[in-house]
Amino acid sequence: MNDKTVSVVGLGDMGTALADALLAAGHRVTVWNRTAARAEPLVARGASRAETAADAIVASQLVVICLLDYDSVSQVLVPHTDVLAGRTLVNLTNGTPGQAREMAAWAADHGADYLDGGIMAVPPMIATPEAFVLYSGPSGTFETWQPVLDAFGESRYLGDDAGAAALQDLALLAGMYGVIAGSLHALALVRSTGGSTREFAPLLSKWLQGVVTWPLAAAEQIDAGDYGEDVVSNLGMQTAGFANHFIAAEEQGISAELLLPVYQLMQRRVADGRGHEDIVGVIELLKR
Amino acid sequence: MNDKTVSVVGLGDMGTALADALLAAGHRVTVWNRTAARAEPLVARGASRAETAADAIVASQLVVICLLDYDSVSQVLVPHTDVLAGRTLVNLTNGTPGQAREMAAWAADHGADYLDGGIMAVPPMIATPEAFVLYSGPSGTFETWQPVLDAFGESRYLGDDAGAAALQDLALLAGMYGVIAGSLHALALVRSTGGSTREFAPLLSKWLQGVVTWPLAAAEQIDAGDYGEDVVSNLGMQTAGFANHFIAAEEQGISAELLLPVYQLMQRRVADGRGHEDIVGVIELLKR
Repeated sequence: MNDKTVSVVGLGDMGTALADALLAAGHRVTVWNRTAARAEPLVARGASRAETAADAIVASQLVVICLLDYDSVSQVLVPHTDVLAGRTLVNLTNGTPGQAREMAAWAADHGADYLDGGIMAVPPMIATPEAFVLYSGPSGTFETWQPVLDAFGESRYLGDDAGAAALQDLALLAGMYGVIAGSLHALALVRSTGGSTREFAPLLSKWLQGVVTWPLAAAEQIDAGDYGEDVVSNLGMQTAGFANHFIAAEEQGISAELLLPVYQLMQRRVADGRGHEDIVGVIELLKR
Repeated sequence: MNDKTVSVVGLGDMGTALADALLAAGHRVTVWNRTAARAEPLVARGASRAETAADAIVASQLVVICLLDYDSVSQVLVPHTDVLAGRTLVNLTNGTPGQAREMAAWAADHGADYLDGGIMAVPPMIATPEAFVLYSGPSGTFETWQPVLDAFGESRYLGDDAGAAALQDLALLAGMYGVIAGSLHALALVRSTGGSTREFAPLLSKWLQGVVTWPLAAAEQIDAGDYGEDVVSNLGMQTAGFANHFIAAEEQGISAELLLPVYQLMQRRVADGRGHEDIVGVIELLKR
């Protein structure tokens, strides 16, 4: 075992990018993938190929795992519980907060330190200033390995709840899908006139740049549990005006289905007598 | 009639802000509102109050209209068709592209020039650098009056389809509601851990800042009708990973309803054999 060696388990596009980032940072890197051929390009760039997953785990104190899902992680790790003690597993596989917490408990049962992570980048962005990675788990473990993990991009530590990284990863992606959904409706509406969406897109992008500060003010209200009184453009006014989206979509021959759930929540909140408040208050209807 | 006089019909919060902006720009302003008392503060600031809507129309060559909806505009204008000839109506009332086109045709029938507009601001933003107003209708009419209209904020001319301003106004708002919907889900997820949403909001806002360029690349694909092959993070991969949003929401006790329609469109597009393409292609499913 060599402190400067890092193992990477799982060599999809993301695992490969992670291994490359470690090589570029000057680490010795041992890689393993179920389909061994995926390791060849990395071996050509200086990595060592482990014959088995157990060999990869034994090779390094730090084992970075990036597989398809948590089931795959279990399939790879469970047969090798005997070699986990004293290792640090950094699991960057996409999953849910519950899966991360379960995996953290399982790792602890086998004497391994465990960090869960969420990569906020696509593979080509790894090791660029645009990439950041969320981590959660014991702070001491994070501090020990951060100098190595920083090779992937900016490391952001979220606390000792192992589920926090997966949770905030999914939360950020949900925000992204909101932008995508709203933009798709906007672009479909503009396309319906026969016009170029390319001419409109810069205006949309610039407008959204002004809108993305919305969560900052919303969070103040949410944490305070106070959605204001007689606010400018209150929920009631916004809900009344919202019908134009559906009429316009009908006029232009497009489906407004992407806008429906937020409108339904707004209507429910108005029906609850909250029309004079800010739209932020509809968050109360998302509790189960 | 005085070229430097502008009439403002409708003195809600927005109409009042528009009249104030015109006063601040040095214009003589005549105002009218169904409930006359709404005019008093403006009269105190130097506006003239017209006794009737007809008086307001007669008072100026340029008549800015900002009422609750297009029905209100019809109710105010229809009894006064005899005084419309030679006037320019700039209708900044919220409505749909179809309503704007109908109103433009009606105004032309009565000898009035007509611009339709969409105000991309709340009343307190009027006359600040953040405000912009979309206009559509005859270019000559826009050019004649732009120097006056610039008092409200940046004027953006969208062409001679009278419906274009209402359409792009609604498109931009749809984008905004997308940000709001995605952010509400994200903030609800973070709140479900008992944590502060205030600590998370700056990360979400920063992340979304990187996402709002999405429409630029999307528009290139849409105009080309080509959604790529084997793109990084293709639709199939994104759709497979999307299930984690629903599992995590269930784990954390929140409703994922805001994410449902975009996911359903993604699934339909994958079922159509488009999983290897970019997510942008789901726009094809919004056609009716």
